[in-house]
Amino acid sequence: MTTKNTKTIKEPRITLVGAGPGDIDLITLKGLKALKTADVVLYDALVSEELLEYAPKRATKVYVGKRSGDHTYSQGAVNKLMVDYAMNYGHVVRLKGGDPFVFGRGYEELDYAASYNIPATVIPGISSSIAIPGLQQIPVTHRGLSESFWVVTGTTASGKISGDVYQAAKSNATVVILMGIHKLAEITEIFKKEGKNKLPAAVIQSGSTSSEKVVVGIADTIVELAAENNISSPALIVFGEVVSLHPKFQPIREFYAIIEGQQD
Amino acid sequence: MTTKNTKTIKEPRITLVGAGPGDIDLITLKGLKALKTADVVLYDALVSEELLEYAPKRATKVYVGKRSGDHTYSQGAVNKLMVDYAMNYGHVVRLKGGDPFVFGRGYEELDYAASYNIPATVIPGISSSIAIPGLQQIPVTHRGLSESFWVVTGTTASGKISGDVYQAAKSNATVVILMGIHKLAEITEIFKKEGKNKLPAAVIQSGSTSSEKVVVGIADTIVELAAENNISSPALIVFGEVVSLHPKFQPIREFYAIIEGQQD
Repeated sequence: MTTKNTKTIKEPRITLVGAGPGDIDLITLKGLKALKTADVVLYDALVSEELLEYAPKRATKVYVGKRSGDHTYSQGAVNKLMVDYAMNYGHVVRLKGGDPFVFGRGYEELDYAASYNIPATVIPGISSSIAIPGLQQIPVTHRGLSESFWVVTGTTASGKISGDVYQAAKSNATVVILMGIHKLAEITEIFKKEGKNKLPAAVIQSGSTSSEKVVVGIADTIVELAAENNISSPALIVFGEVVSLHPKFQPIREFYAIIEGQQD
Repeated sequence: MTTKNTKTIKEPRITLVGAGPGDIDLITLKGLKALKTADVVLYDALVSEELLEYAPKRATKVYVGKRSGDHTYSQGAVNKLMVDYAMNYGHVVRLKGGDPFVFGRGYEELDYAASYNIPATVIPGISSSIAIPGLQQIPVTHRGLSESFWVVTGTTASGKISGDVYQAAKSNATVVILMGIHKLAEITEIFKKEGKNKLPAAVIQSGSTSSEKVVVGIADTIVELAAENNISSPALIVFGEVVSLHPKFQPIREFYAIIEGQQD
């Protein structure tokens, strides 16, 4: 038999897979099936390495993580790696935290693949924007409290706070801010300038994982609470009446009832 | 042996599971594991019955679907069934379309379970709001086009269009409207009143399933396109510059380039 040394030429293809918010069991069955047929896996910082065990042993696994201050690969470099691997090895699974299209730059990767005529598909992932509040039993929508939710990035390409945060602070939507923890004070100020000092707010760090931490308060208290509890990245921020449904909010409600009673 | 007739008393518990947007492979691994230990499954109209095959054969499966004009069970009746089954049979899996907290009334179910001291947990699902545009390769966010997305219901408890749709039409966010297809004309009018006649728009019916249908246009054309193509429920609406990335948008862009050229 000489087949061992024969390089089988595989059709190049790329699958963008959303790995979900952290808990490895929150990947979809479809994402798992894609991983099992991967020749190469390119994975991000927020993806649990345990997920790689679903890929074949022979598959090449490459960490292409990008986090604040840890720009191992630029987006351009990731795009190029992805296409090079597909052309040389076959099926590339691009495993991304959350959903590929929620601030994941997934479309840029699809577009780059298309420019090389490499077939590329997307398998959605559980977005932390909905699931991380949800796992804390904070529903992004709830009858009587919220008819919509608005998901905004705290970190834009320019480094400035997105103009959309200013619009969101004026709205009735539940506002979920991703990648905004380093600007929590500035962002909270925007809500306070709209007179929303008493708006319930939560910050959740490492949601869905064993190191999950949550603080619950109002716009007036959330910055201090996050500092006292050493909340750090990755963390998301939620502003909205729905946060009042969190069990930790009950004492806050009672506190304000007393304060208001005293003022009468 | 007499054990056959002995009723084992099981601890009542409830798991709300998001089944995802339609494609059965878009359920999470965690959701699947919960289904495999179900004694009872209560499932909604938008959940594929094929998913029930993951539940044990002996499990009781109950359809509690609610769709426009098909109110088999009121929310109150579903809550009561859920608790009754848990107390009598053990583990109830409440299988809901999409994510339980995205217009899913999931919190009401958790709250009802809590009022009976029945432990209840949530397993997030893939929300159609993000995934259905995504599967059409319409990213809800994209650098240079959108720094946020806003998900609104088209059908409020009162039957009126949510005030949030009016706010959303003024914003820079990608706007995704669920359960709004019956009010497509009215909703589109709101965007046109904001001068957004040329804003790219898409309507996607039965996303992620084999009967998926999509129409892509602009605010000025989307109502007619949806009618011509007999788009019906379930369908979601997307307004935003990101829709211009859809392959079907390219001819529209060329058409307007010609029209504008002629006006010069």
